Amino acid sequence: MKLLNSLVAVSCITVSVFAADALIKQAKDAGLEPIPTKQKDLMKIIDSDSNKITPAKVELGKKLYFDPRLSKSNLISCNTCHNLALAGADLVPAAIGHKWTANPSHLNSPTVYNAVFAKSQFWDGRDPHLEAQAQGPIQAMPEMAASKELIEQRINSIPEYVNEFKKIYGKESKIDLKLVADTIAVFEKTLTTPSRFDDYLNGNEKALTKDEKEGLKVFIDKGCATCHNGIALGGTMQPFEVAGKYKHAELGGFKGNKDGHIKVPTLRNILETAPYYHNGAIWDIKEAIAEMGKIQLGVELNEKEVNAIATFFNSLTGTKPKIEYPILPASTAATPKPEAN
Amino acid sequence: MKLLNSLVAVSCITVSVFAADALIKQAKDAGLEPIPTKQKDLMKIIDSDSNKITPAKVELGKKLYFDPRLSKSNLISCNTCHNLALAGADLVPAAIGHKWTANPSHLNSPTVYNAVFAKSQFWDGRDPHLEAQAQGPIQAMPEMAASKELIEQRINSIPEYVNEFKKIYGKESKIDLKLVADTIAVFEKTLTTPSRFDDYLNGNEKALTKDEKEGLKVFIDKGCATCHNGIALGGTMQPFEVAGKYKHAELGGFKGNKDGHIKVPTLRNILETAPYYHNGAIWDIKEAIAEMGKIQLGVELNEKEVNAIATFFNSLTGTKPKIEYPILPASTAATPKPEAN
Repeated sequence: MKLLNSLVAVSCITVSVFAADALIKQAKDAGLEPIPTKQKDLMKIIDSDSNKITPAKVELGKKLYFDPRLSKSNLISCNTCHNLALAGADLVPAAIGHKWTANPSHLNSPTVYNAVFAKSQFWDGRDPHLEAQAQGPIQAMPEMAASKELIEQRINSIPEYVNEFKKIYGKESKIDLKLVADTIAVFEKTLTTPSRFDDYLNGNEKALTKDEKEGLKVFIDKGCATCHNGIALGGTMQPFEVAGKYKHAELGGFKGNKDGHIKVPTLRNILETAPYYHNGAIWDIKEAIAEMGKIQLGVELNEKEVNAIATFFNSLTGTKPKIEYPILPASTAATPKPEAN
Repeated sequence: MKLLNSLVAVSCITVSVFAADALIKQAKDAGLEPIPTKQKDLMKIIDSDSNKITPAKVELGKKLYFDPRLSKSNLISCNTCHNLALAGADLVPAAIGHKWTANPSHLNSPTVYNAVFAKSQFWDGRDPHLEAQAQGPIQAMPEMAASKELIEQRINSIPEYVNEFKKIYGKESKIDLKLVADTIAVFEKTLTTPSRFDDYLNGNEKALTKDEKEGLKVFIDKGCATCHNGIALGGTMQPFEVAGKYKHAELGGFKGNKDGHIKVPTLRNILETAPYYHNGAIWDIKEAIAEMGKIQLGVELNEKEVNAIATFFNSLTGTKPKIEYPILPASTAATPKPEAN
């Protein structure tokens, strides 16, 4: 009887279910994965034994993320270049840091949203962990330009921060740059943005429009998912300029890691994170798609195909977590002063 | 019977009530006023017929306040210099704006919290209204450096912004810089921070500690409330260097308005908004208090008096409104690009 019911139910919606199922299956076979719906499953992916996610760490990490006192000048926070109001990026081609200095390799700030799903951090993929990533910009001269010592003096001079750290990590814990970055990383791990695409992969065939499904099919059939796969639709290291030369390759002169590999950017929220490419040289998503076809896949995508893929990208715009803007603890007389130069 | 009850009740707590009442009365007589407790009374002070506060305006104003696309570079928002996480200021001596340029008169960013209670905006008090103030930094070259036209093109190129404006101000409304600034001002008017000092003025004699009350008495007796009065404990235009020369007067060379008058900074949240004075030259609140005594009142405050006043200032640290960090609408192909130079 149960089997019969199932068969009857299936027969009524055969065509659409099978068609949808086929594309969902094709997407999964191509390596596309949803953000887990269940908190427990999500935690398995984003949490790590060496730096457990806890509500207190998330709260403290949020404060540190928004605190410009982690920069030499008191003017630049993590959120300056990875602005949670602006899809986790900064809307400028090359990141601008301390003393208004552009990134020397003209590198564009990648979004922090869903960065936890990437297998590599930094454009040259030099570290897989957000914990290590967070230490980078704080100390980099053209970014926040602070020394390890300065950060440690600043944080340790602010009793409210010290108390929060000790409550979380124990009374004997040493509050150093590593602990600061680890805590920021925990906050960043919570910045995931599920979208209609996840609903679709999870079986809700109505979550995507007909045009978006068509775009998804073109995206897979043309080979885009070769690099843009996994939960992040990106985040792994891949060779660049496989089939042709990137038209703005000279800008900044960045050539990737020692093997010429470059981190594949996530496509989640991609319609909100222009300009594109590692050097932010292309503002138009359609131009970016066509260029990718040429240089990575060796295919000339026609206008219809480019439009279809761009339409599919709408389904990747996700829901951002609600964040209460923090009230940061006040500096004290012992807090090292800002240095603008 | 009723009268009798009252008399009995009073007789039990005669001393403390009378003592407290005397100081509260003295404070009020000196012109110190609480932030109204009742929403209705508060609205009478912060609202204006020409630009009514509504929830939709507050929400849109908040987005604009946090949006760095109101700057030429896409990098500086109102919140950069008036950071709501940092007591509404920026923790640097002179404001740093476009191209990392310090304010040419070395002027320090005043806090935006409680700015609605000030009778004058800008250090030279050139306008009494937040609506006019908000137009200033957006266009000022060493600040956000955007032209009126650029702002209007940016906002009008973003459909979600256009829709919000039209919903609030009507379909025919012209979205110009004035309307943008007016909307930001409405958000700013909600940034009030009631503190224990208000509870005290409203009759709760236990809201201040004994030491804070002592400090309040010194504050009034020495004449500080001559300028630091009203709800803002500041916010009016007053002569500067009345009795002596400010020791850092040369820094930036700012001399106030044409009459040599300068806006009195609010003392609300003062312990969180170092550095002090119009040119941010003094980091230590006690040094700032002593210097004020000398140059404005012609009195040498001794250490005990300075400490007492600084202790009183603790009661002025207020509760900041909870603010959900906005998710800003995405730019479009028509949105003018950022210009870093």
